[in-house]
Amino acid sequence: MNSAEDKITNWFARQSKLDNRKFPIGIGDDMAMIGLGSDKSILVTTDMLLEGVHFDLSKATLEQVGYKAMAVSLSDCAAMATKPIGAVAAVALPKRFGQKELKQIHNGINIAAEKYNCPLIGGDITSWKTDAGFAINITMFSSQGNCRPVKRSGAQVEDVICVTGFLGGSDLGKHLEFTPRVFEALEITSMVRVNSMMDLSDGLSSDLPRICTQSKVGALIEEDRLPVSAQAMSKNDPLGAVLNDGEDFELLFTLSKEDSEKLFENWEGDLIITPIGEITSTGIVEMKTACGLIVTLKQKGYDHLGSGNGV
Amino acid sequence: MNSAEDKITNWFARQSKLDNRKFPIGIGDDMAMIGLGSDKSILVTTDMLLEGVHFDLSKATLEQVGYKAMAVSLSDCAAMATKPIGAVAAVALPKRFGQKELKQIHNGINIAAEKYNCPLIGGDITSWKTDAGFAINITMFSSQGNCRPVKRSGAQVEDVICVTGFLGGSDLGKHLEFTPRVFEALEITSMVRVNSMMDLSDGLSSDLPRICTQSKVGALIEEDRLPVSAQAMSKNDPLGAVLNDGEDFELLFTLSKEDSEKLFENWEGDLIITPIGEITSTGIVEMKTACGLIVTLKQKGYDHLGSGNGV
Repeated sequence: MNSAEDKITNWFARQSKLDNRKFPIGIGDDMAMIGLGSDKSILVTTDMLLEGVHFDLSKATLEQVGYKAMAVSLSDCAAMATKPIGAVAAVALPKRFGQKELKQIHNGINIAAEKYNCPLIGGDITSWKTDAGFAINITMFSSQGNCRPVKRSGAQVEDVICVTGFLGGSDLGKHLEFTPRVFEALEITSMVRVNSMMDLSDGLSSDLPRICTQSKVGALIEEDRLPVSAQAMSKNDPLGAVLNDGEDFELLFTLSKEDSEKLFENWEGDLIITPIGEITSTGIVEMKTACGLIVTLKQKGYDHLGSGNGV
Repeated sequence: MNSAEDKITNWFARQSKLDNRKFPIGIGDDMAMIGLGSDKSILVTTDMLLEGVHFDLSKATLEQVGYKAMAVSLSDCAAMATKPIGAVAAVALPKRFGQKELKQIHNGINIAAEKYNCPLIGGDITSWKTDAGFAINITMFSSQGNCRPVKRSGAQVEDVICVTGFLGGSDLGKHLEFTPRVFEALEITSMVRVNSMMDLSDGLSSDLPRICTQSKVGALIEEDRLPVSAQAMSKNDPLGAVLNDGEDFELLFTLSKEDSEKLFENWEGDLIITPIGEITSTGIVEMKTACGLIVTLKQKGYDHLGSGNGV
């Protein structure tokens, strides 16, 4: 809530005076929604990945970068429990890149496109005049799944807070080959009513406050219940990794106690779903530590417009 | 047709096996089209603009860059005679950029958004870790206008080839403040049937061959009839500027002789429309020079993947 990125996003949201019938969901959620009349709508998300920020070409292949670019947007489709339709890609290539490199990127895009039935339907190819940074932008479209698109703003006091999978340490490799939870989000919302959801892109300590702000609620999570990944365990500060590493691309969602019980009873998916705490009326995001202290959760997830940017 | 950019675009188009019912228009036109059932559809275009390639921050303000980014995509909407709906923006900012710069970019975006009733509905803000190049990507959506979206592939032998406005010399300043021909394209298609259309982004010598290739026809234009801009006239080689400068963002379209006569009789717009030649069955793109020679038009417009890129 206090990050520079959130501040400017909120400013943009305030500037935009969108007609709510034409755009039922605008700036500030994982996807925007365009109403097309006769109950038809389409959702859209755009994500830019940069060399040296979101991937490092000494550690990642171009195929992995293409895959990741698609997977990040697919994760946004999952975040609202929507069904991917298609995507367009725009690339800014270092001067040294040619047809070979483009085809490698395209291969990676296609792996994700085929798995999630979300074909590439158009694009734009541009090149820097220097060997400056490679950038790839994916804009993806989706349609309503088994329910209305799940927003960040629907969390209710006493909701159970859940996450999928294991958190932390994605920077050790998972961020290049993670599985966007598209199918799982559709499955969960076919079983129970989910009140609020988003994907964990910047870390639990940044993302949970976003649900709380938009829903005008607080949260209390329990350190003991956090699903720590093996990669996070291998780090000096596993808890910090779980809370702050970002790029987990797991689902963070809230639902009523009754629905959570129903979900845990009936969930047969391979993916682990963990209840990590509860939505509160405090308006602040707190954590009960392993030794029983209640502390305010500090937002240390990745901030794209941190103080280094002069904001 | 022979540019590296066209070669790789064609390769991408061949790779894509799009379901024609879901995606009636795919890679290779100015916009892709997504069918949503019940006769509903949406069109989409994505464009990336790069510092040092599409704008120079020593000559352009950030407001102008924001405006241009929107105008380039609006010109794609015009190219198919469609009505803009909304846009999403993704920016890759140099490290030194902060909130002030973002608001300047946003101002420029909004000038175009308000003029064309095409609001910004979402976006992504990322920052380089260095003061490397600024990039801005706009993805824009539109809906069908007064007719089915006009493709590049519909040109018929004996069609009259027309362009709007004056060509050449856009690099002297117009490229930052051009008027996308959104309203004019809708007006023209409300009056007559347009067989093929695109916007002039890379220059007549690159763009006319694209219509001819996709329509499987040739063309003969006349040097004497080309509408030379004042900026092109101020250059050493005005004809070269008209043919090759690119970024005119005027409309290039073809229609039957009868329809062209009807258009010229009834057109009351401020914008000049000039017939510059005829579609032929030769399969090649030719120009009749001022002294009466017929020469093959060489493609010298801007190529984003020129030989400098090793393709």
